[in-house]
Amino acid sequence: MKTETTIQGLNAALSPARTAKKRIGFVPTMGNLHEGHLNLVREAKKLCDVVVVSIFVNPIQFGPNEDFDNYPRTLDKDSQLLADVGCDIVFAPSVEQMYGKQPLLTNISVSGITADLCGASRPGHFDGVAVVVSKLFNIVQPSLAFFGQKDFQQLAVIRQLVQDLSFPIEVIGVPITRAADGLALSSRNGYLTPEQRAVAPTIYQSLKHAEKALLEGVSLDTVLAEITTQLTQAGFVVDYVEARSPALQMVTDFKQDTVIFVAAKLGTTRLIDNLIVKFVG
Amino acid sequence: MKTETTIQGLNAALSPARTAKKRIGFVPTMGNLHEGHLNLVREAKKLCDVVVVSIFVNPIQFGPNEDFDNYPRTLDKDSQLLADVGCDIVFAPSVEQMYGKQPLLTNISVSGITADLCGASRPGHFDGVAVVVSKLFNIVQPSLAFFGQKDFQQLAVIRQLVQDLSFPIEVIGVPITRAADGLALSSRNGYLTPEQRAVAPTIYQSLKHAEKALLEGVSLDTVLAEITTQLTQAGFVVDYVEARSPALQMVTDFKQDTVIFVAAKLGTTRLIDNLIVKFVG
Repeated sequence: MKTETTIQGLNAALSPARTAKKRIGFVPTMGNLHEGHLNLVREAKKLCDVVVVSIFVNPIQFGPNEDFDNYPRTLDKDSQLLADVGCDIVFAPSVEQMYGKQPLLTNISVSGITADLCGASRPGHFDGVAVVVSKLFNIVQPSLAFFGQKDFQQLAVIRQLVQDLSFPIEVIGVPITRAADGLALSSRNGYLTPEQRAVAPTIYQSLKHAEKALLEGVSLDTVLAEITTQLTQAGFVVDYVEARSPALQMVTDFKQDTVIFVAAKLGTTRLIDNLIVKFVG
Repeated sequence: MKTETTIQGLNAALSPARTAKKRIGFVPTMGNLHEGHLNLVREAKKLCDVVVVSIFVNPIQFGPNEDFDNYPRTLDKDSQLLADVGCDIVFAPSVEQMYGKQPLLTNISVSGITADLCGASRPGHFDGVAVVVSKLFNIVQPSLAFFGQKDFQQLAVIRQLVQDLSFPIEVIGVPITRAADGLALSSRNGYLTPEQRAVAPTIYQSLKHAEKALLEGVSLDTVLAEITTQLTQAGFVVDYVEARSPALQMVTDFKQDTVIFVAAKLGTTRLIDNLIVKFVG
């Protein structure tokens, strides 16, 4: 496995694969990797000849009160994990390598689907994601790019971006990886105290309960309210509990495949999760 | 010369060149070609193995009161001209081929350098340019892209876009092509009446006069005011007369290379021009 920290180095490392027209797969990450990321790499290995994983904590997708400075940087451990799952190239650029010394004047916004859910409490977040992903796409030039369904809204934003800007890239959404007790894996789980970690799986339990209730004919409104009640009783401060179509359109009834989204805080740690409930007509 | 109207067709036509790692040059146009465009193609021929010219009147860069519907579409004549100068592939997609049937949700804005000059009177224009150029870059995937210096602000916006989004493309600015009497060539010159066409070269004459005055030590303010006076006396309605650095920063004195920008209307036709005045310290 090669590790490259410059665009020039990455181009040199990818040159043979590009010349041989190999399928290049790309997994963008912010590092601090867990099994969820590694499953993205495993999926990329299945579908591609060469897999590039980027590790870059992107300053412009963090808000002023968010955890950019404290976001965990664990490159050595990440590299070991990536080597073990067969990653070919790690791209780990500095902020200066990515953004240079001149001011960034270009912004990309994806309207409609970024205004609510996580976009409501994180203004500018998805703009920052759209810019860095566009840059990374232009730098890596992959055939396929892999994103986790845990960040379902982000995945929808990336799909829209790729369609709207005609990127010659196929976007693959990979299902959420969960701990044995159902908690969706996330870098932020490491911020939880042992007590909070014990409570955290309530999110998934409430989603599974909601799925069962919907399939039994309970109304969508009732089901969403129940999730909020369960989480609040367990000690969460709920940010949102919402239902959307897979394309993130508003839905009021359960009469198509429906994604239920949860964002809730335990102490200072904000957790998100979602579940796609299949409609059986 | 091949003409392709679909992205799929263009990819098929470019596939041999991509496999052979040939240098692909790209000249984006809105058609209604004149010698200025043909000089872009000639420059591309010099530096590249394969030259692609796109002809696409991009709806999203026109304002609601601008001339999208009436913009001249002259594909047959354009194709003949392009064949004569050795263009390899014409890409002439429909609006639906470029934008599909789903709504476009993604916008790209380049702040700072788009707010004034032509941006002031054409809100959203450079956003529309940034989106379509990004799409065309992703579709054509050229090594070099050629833009005229007549649209100097547009060229600066594209350079910024390419830098900020890390497009792996070299942007080449090509000097303005002028008629024998100095008028900068433009599709819009065709809208002028014979009387207006006779007056139109006053723009270039006033710019050359300004260059001479600056080099003789006349102040920048005075020189800019003189251009406005000359144009107004000749029957123009002046939109702006401004000086900027080549990177479009404000300048108040002539103590570096300085670009003088003019936009002025003759009747309903808006003409733009610019002149780079070299500073000899």
